[in-house]
Amino acid sequence: MEFQERLNRYVEEIEQALDQYLTTFGCNGQEKIVEAMRYSALAGGKRLRPVLTMEFCRAVGGDPYAALPFACALEMIHTYSLIHDDLPCMDNDDLRRGKPTNHKVYGEGLAVLAGDSLLTYAFETAARGMNESDVTAQQAVEAIGILAHEAGYYGMIGGQVLDLAAEHQTLTYEELVNLQDKKTGGLIRAAAEMGCVLGYATEEQREAAKTYANRLGLAFQIQDDILDIEGDEAVFGKPIGSDEKSGKSTFPGLMGVETCRKMVQDLTDEAVCAVKTLPESDFLVQLAESLVGRKK
Amino acid sequence: MEFQERLNRYVEEIEQALDQYLTTFGCNGQEKIVEAMRYSALAGGKRLRPVLTMEFCRAVGGDPYAALPFACALEMIHTYSLIHDDLPCMDNDDLRRGKPTNHKVYGEGLAVLAGDSLLTYAFETAARGMNESDVTAQQAVEAIGILAHEAGYYGMIGGQVLDLAAEHQTLTYEELVNLQDKKTGGLIRAAAEMGCVLGYATEEQREAAKTYANRLGLAFQIQDDILDIEGDEAVFGKPIGSDEKSGKSTFPGLMGVETCRKMVQDLTDEAVCAVKTLPESDFLVQLAESLVGRKK
Repeated sequence: MEFQERLNRYVEEIEQALDQYLTTFGCNGQEKIVEAMRYSALAGGKRLRPVLTMEFCRAVGGDPYAALPFACALEMIHTYSLIHDDLPCMDNDDLRRGKPTNHKVYGEGLAVLAGDSLLTYAFETAARGMNESDVTAQQAVEAIGILAHEAGYYGMIGGQVLDLAAEHQTLTYEELVNLQDKKTGGLIRAAAEMGCVLGYATEEQREAAKTYANRLGLAFQIQDDILDIEGDEAVFGKPIGSDEKSGKSTFPGLMGVETCRKMVQDLTDEAVCAVKTLPESDFLVQLAESLVGRKK
Repeated sequence: MEFQERLNRYVEEIEQALDQYLTTFGCNGQEKIVEAMRYSALAGGKRLRPVLTMEFCRAVGGDPYAALPFACALEMIHTYSLIHDDLPCMDNDDLRRGKPTNHKVYGEGLAVLAGDSLLTYAFETAARGMNESDVTAQQAVEAIGILAHEAGYYGMIGGQVLDLAAEHQTLTYEELVNLQDKKTGGLIRAAAEMGCVLGYATEEQREAAKTYANRLGLAFQIQDDILDIEGDEAVFGKPIGSDEKSGKSTFPGLMGVETCRKMVQDLTDEAVCAVKTLPESDFLVQLAESLVGRKK
C-alpha cells in the first residue's frame, strides 16, 4: 500500500473509533460535557501520535488494529492537554485548529472537566481495549504504564511545568531541548513505545523506535516554532507570533530560522536512520520526511 | 486486631506509601509541582477510600497489602478532584482541610497541572503496582478499568458536571441522589470493587461490596451536608454554610436535618447488612458505624 493511502486509512480508522468511543455515553443532563469532549477530540488535526502507535505495531510485525484502542487513548490525552494548555491560567489562547478554544465555547469550568474526563476516559479505553483485540493483559498493563509515565510528571506534564516556569525567561538551548523533550517528546515516545509493546517488539527494535520518536519529536517542535514565526494563520490554525507575544523561548529565537531549518532536516535524517532496521520502515521514513517543511 | 488499631495501621501504611510515591521524582526546576502535589495529597484526611480498598481485599480473603498501590492510586485521584473542584472556575473555595486551597498557595496554572499530574500518576502507580505485589496483569487491568470508569464521566466527573450545571437551581430528591451517587459514590464504589478484584472475590461478594459502597457513599454525603450546616469550622476543616452561599441543593435543604440524620442511620444499617455475609465483616461494620454522626 502506498504511504498516503495507508496514512489516510489510519486517520479514518482513528477518527471513526474516537467518534464511537465518545458517543457511548449516557445522558441525564451530562450531554454538554460529551459535546465539549467531542468538540476538541474530533476537531481534526494530523493524528500523528495515534498513527505512530498503529504503525509501530505494524512495523515490528504486529497487527496495527490491535493497537487502535491504545492509539485512541493517546489521542484523547493529547486532546486534553491542548484544552488545559489553552486555559486562561495557562497559555490563554483563543484559537486552536482554526476554531475558538474549548473554554471560549463551553466556559472554563466545563473545559477543565472536559480535559479531566478525556484524560480519565483514555485510561478506561486502554484498559478495556484488551477485550476488543487479542492484546494480553500483560501487554495492556505495560502500555498503560508507558502512557501514564510519558503523559505525566516525567513526560508531558513535566514539560508543561517547565514551560509555565519559563515564561518571560530566556532559556539556554539545553534547557529548551529538555523542556520540549518532555512537553512534545513525551507523547510521541509513548506512541512509539506502546506500538512496540503491542507488536511484541524486541529490545533492539524498541530502542530504535525511541530514537526515532526522540528525533522526530524535536524536529516537530522546531518546525512548530518556525511556523509560529512565518506560518499562514489560516493554514496553521493557530495565531502566528503567539510565542513572541507571550515571551516564550523558541528555537528560532535562540539560533535563527535558517539554522533551525537545517536542524529539522538533520533530526529527520537521524530518525529515518534509526528505523531502517525494522521489518517494515517505508511508512515511518516517508512520514518523517513528510513533516519536514510542513505548513500546518 | 481491634478496629481502631487496624484503621490506624492502614492509614499509616497509606500515608507512608503516598509519601514515597511522591518523592521518587527528579528535579530540573520541576520541584514546585511535586511540592504542590504533596501539599494536597499529604494534607491528612480520613483516607476512607484507600482504607476501603485494602479492607475489601482482606474481607474477601486477599492480602490487603497487595491492594496498597491501587489504594494509593485511588487516593491520588480523590486528591486531584479536590484540587480541581476548588478552582475559581469551579467551586472557588479558599479553604480545604483547614488549609488554603492548592491554587491559593501555588496559583491556578500550577494547581491545574498538579491535579492533572496526580490523576495521571495514579494510573502509573496502579500499572506499576503489579510489580510490587503478586497481583496478576489481569487483575491490574481490571482494577484500572474500574478506577477509570468510576473516576470519569460515568462516575465522579459525571457528578461534577451535574453539580456545575445545578448551581442556583433546586434539584429534586431523585436528581440530587443521582448527582451524589456519581460525585461521591463513584470513588467509594471504585474502592470497594477494586478491593474485591484484587482479593479474588466471588460475584456475590462483589455485589455485596457494591451495595455497601452505594449506601455508605450516600450516607457519607448526607452527613457532609449536615456538617455544612451545623459543623464546627475548626473541626470540619471547611467553611460552614458554603453550600447555602453557593446556592447548592442539599439533602437537609430538601428534607430537613432531622430526616437526614435518620437517613444516615438507615443507609448505614443497609450497608452493614450487605456485608454481613463476607468472610470478614467486623471492620467494615464498625467503619460504617463510626461515620454516623461524625464531626469531620
